[in-house]
Amino acid sequence: MEKQLFANCGINCAACPADQVTKEGGDLDAIQTAIDLVKSSKVAFLGSNGADGYPNIKAMLELATNGLETMYFSSNTSSRRVADLRANPKACLYYVDTDHFIGLMLVGEIEIVSEQATKDRLWRTGFERYYPLGKTDPDYSILKFTAKWGKLYNGGKYVKCFHIQA
Amino acid sequence: MEKQLFANCGINCAACPADQVTKEGGDLDAIQTAIDLVKSSKVAFLGSNGADGYPNIKAMLELATNGLETMYFSSNTSSRRVADLRANPKACLYYVDTDHFIGLMLVGEIEIVSEQATKDRLWRTGFERYYPLGKTDPDYSILKFTAKWGKLYNGGKYVKCFHIQA
Repeated sequence: MEKQLFANCGINCAACPADQVTKEGGDLDAIQTAIDLVKSSKVAFLGSNGADGYPNIKAMLELATNGLETMYFSSNTSSRRVADLRANPKACLYYVDTDHFIGLMLVGEIEIVSEQATKDRLWRTGFERYYPLGKTDPDYSILKFTAKWGKLYNGGKYVKCFHIQA
Repeated sequence: MEKQLFANCGINCAACPADQVTKEGGDLDAIQTAIDLVKSSKVAFLGSNGADGYPNIKAMLELATNGLETMYFSSNTSSRRVADLRANPKACLYYVDTDHFIGLMLVGEIEIVSEQATKDRLWRTGFERYYPLGKTDPDYSILKFTAKWGKLYNGGKYVKCFHIQA
């Protein structure tokens, strides 16, 4: 299903941060800036919550993306992070371009994908280092992030909120 | 009060992630690597929780640090982030060197500092852009992060857990 992006709904809905402010710049420019940042980023920062309720962050190598809506990563099934995400799928991703002071936060949920076809499709040469048994290694898990909303910081120019809805 | 760092307690205490593993390398090397990373980082990534329980991340410019134990940042008092941290002080910081695949997560709590002497000490030229009324601008807040424990990822070499105790 094709999803739509809504930039700056302006209705102060529950998903919107209260401090969303458009200082300058068009909505389409902001969405394109966000998409370009995701495409050009080597790593994304994944935020999740530990069992003790403290937020955790880890840098992740992105395996595939679909616009601003879906991102795929891999992780060890046996890791604390995967256990935390199974218990609490609430997550966020952060992308940053420190040279141009651009930051993008996407907030949504993580699903642990067990489907073998997806694992095969996203397997990369060298993954044997992390998953010695290969594509069918039970310790090889795919994390699928689906965004609900996002917020773009573009230097001092603007802060924008996006809604991502089915 | 001087604090002590405990690397790899090895007793699987509540603060330790279950997946802590020492693959290689000495404890003192790991602590020095972590301190060097904090010192050389231009930005830190701050993790907090929104009122809806979703983790949030934002890049922050660090104003001052004390080893791995205390970090200071500034933020707008009126921002959603400050309101979220007042409601839930649980936080984490993440530092990364993507060239050398080194990542450091520090988990702890954030306190909003209202003491004017601290605000004066951490004020920087150019902050007028964010806080037009200057050092006494009520919208100028200092965030003080105090770490409880940390975890260092050093390439494929090791993952280490630190405890930071009074």
